Amino acid sequence: MGATPYLSLDAEVMQANIDAMAEHARRYGMVLRPHAKTHKSPAVAEVQLTAGAQGLTVATIGEAEVFASVCRDLFIAYPLWVDGDASARLTSLSEAGVRLRVGCDSETSGRNLAGLPVEVLVEIDSGHHRSGVAPESAGALAQNLAGLGLTVLGVFTFPGHSYSPGSGEAAALEEAEALARAAASLREFGIEPAVISGGSTPSASFSTSVATELRPGVYVFGDAQQVELGTIQPEQVALTVVSTVVSHAGGRVICDAGSKALAADRAPWASGYGRVFGEPDARIVALSEHHATISWPGELPALGSTLRLLPNHACNAVNLADSYRLSTGELWSIPARGRNN
Amino acid sequence: MGATPYLSLDAEVMQANIDAMAEHARRYGMVLRPHAKTHKSPAVAEVQLTAGAQGLTVATIGEAEVFASVCRDLFIAYPLWVDGDASARLTSLSEAGVRLRVGCDSETSGRNLAGLPVEVLVEIDSGHHRSGVAPESAGALAQNLAGLGLTVLGVFTFPGHSYSPGSGEAAALEEAEALARAAASLREFGIEPAVISGGSTPSASFSTSVATELRPGVYVFGDAQQVELGTIQPEQVALTVVSTVVSHAGGRVICDAGSKALAADRAPWASGYGRVFGEPDARIVALSEHHATISWPGELPALGSTLRLLPNHACNAVNLADSYRLSTGELWSIPARGRNN
Repeated sequence: MGATPYLSLDAEVMQANIDAMAEHARRYGMVLRPHAKTHKSPAVAEVQLTAGAQGLTVATIGEAEVFASVCRDLFIAYPLWVDGDASARLTSLSEAGVRLRVGCDSETSGRNLAGLPVEVLVEIDSGHHRSGVAPESAGALAQNLAGLGLTVLGVFTFPGHSYSPGSGEAAALEEAEALARAAASLREFGIEPAVISGGSTPSASFSTSVATELRPGVYVFGDAQQVELGTIQPEQVALTVVSTVVSHAGGRVICDAGSKALAADRAPWASGYGRVFGEPDARIVALSEHHATISWPGELPALGSTLRLLPNHACNAVNLADSYRLSTGELWSIPARGRNN
Repeated sequence: MGATPYLSLDAEVMQANIDAMAEHARRYGMVLRPHAKTHKSPAVAEVQLTAGAQGLTVATIGEAEVFASVCRDLFIAYPLWVDGDASARLTSLSEAGVRLRVGCDSETSGRNLAGLPVEVLVEIDSGHHRSGVAPESAGALAQNLAGLGLTVLGVFTFPGHSYSPGSGEAAALEEAEALARAAASLREFGIEPAVISGGSTPSASFSTSVATELRPGVYVFGDAQQVELGTIQPEQVALTVVSTVVSHAGGRVICDAGSKALAADRAPWASGYGRVFGEPDARIVALSEHHATISWPGELPALGSTLRLLPNHACNAVNLADSYRLSTGELWSIPARGRNN
């Protein structure tokens, strides 16, 4: 045990999560390309790759540079704006033997990619309403990108609207319909999509058709959001923040993990700023940078005792730490932390 | 300019913020002991100390270890639970010549401090309802701590309930009343409080009596919360996240700074997930890890153009970065980033 708060990783629970998703992808004949932004750790990626992942997804060129050490097939699932510096970095990655795919949702952005050693996937909006073109517009964009000399491999989307209670299945259906329409749109322009890529953790179990590739991220660890969405059970969460009870002020538990350890994420439907492992009725009612204020049913845990807290959003909690501590005491580093560009 | 997103620091605006707070403290005869958790940077602390700060406040022993390089008078304003490892670290700091003060809100926690080279301030709750005892109980706790052989210097509080629109003055009044009651409580037990410490950025300008010491943090940079609270004007914000427009999907601006650059903080009263510098009517309506979705009035800025975004909460945005970029191109490192324990 070290000074609190720290990130604790249960490697057995993680392995079970990784195996289950790999089995799901195999059963439905999909390529599994997990999003590495969740764990930011080549050590974790190697477990995923050993279990059957066929490539990795990343969010930034900086993450691609980190994961190139363990994987030669990377998809930067982001509508990159590529300037001169970014071009040089993409070229270096390619020269190092990495096959690179990047996202694109406009011809303007695509012009920056022309001549670079990357393949392109057209991003479509399947209902999350973030980046991406309408599915019906995918073919026209793909044709324009091909006209720039780019290789258009197919289409991708992120069904982020699955992050609402009870929405996983509906989002997966919308995703499948949107991907099918986008694929048809490409075919209208004579482009056969080799890759039809989707997936998020809450929708992944319902993604069983249309998509040829699945890109979930959070499933590797789980978090309080996934528990509250009903995607997983609390005992399937592999990542917790170990924290010490420092005060009983106001008859509540105050512990030393705040938004600088758990991150400040709180969806409108969340019960609080995270959960307490093994205490389903405890509620994290307030979060400062170094304090969690927990409404606690029954007798309070003693001052100095430790609690395991589930972050609401694993990806952002991981991005605050430099390493995972395993139950063996071993530390796994998080070298992609902070690689935002 | 570097790859986006990155943290940009306007050193002139910061200097003006630092000078104004130092002048306020001088005018009312208060010691200024800024909270370094906001900037996590010895370089910034040196500017504060040169302008008249007489010591620094930190949140963790790890932060104290970083700031010992520039300041020999540190207050860990936190109800520390000190185990063996923490004892050794506090002792090392003291042996290196640092005068250490720590917070305490229970006799149980105080027992761990007995025999250590630290002075103690009793934490009281002035209305924020986080850690701290009731003001009336401060004297009894101080007596018990003194009975353990500890030197009780005085009392402190954080008026965090100032973080609500229009609450700065009311919170400062409550703070002053609570500090006065706590000081009286100590005197009832024959302990004269040498230090009566309070202050937060939204309440600081109203803190003009009772407190002998002021500990604001965010004032050094400002952020979207302070603008929306009315504490400062937008042009007084020294810290922005420079971000590139990557998509116009859905007729909105999507740029490459998300919750991994801005942090996910959003108070219930906030207009969005931050603000856009120079665009008062733009609203950051959604935030993913690497996307800000901005509702934009009028013509959208071109793909590839850069925006300066104001984080809602400077402290958490800083804790995501490894350095500040100044307008000169110079980088200032953030060595206390991630020093949560």
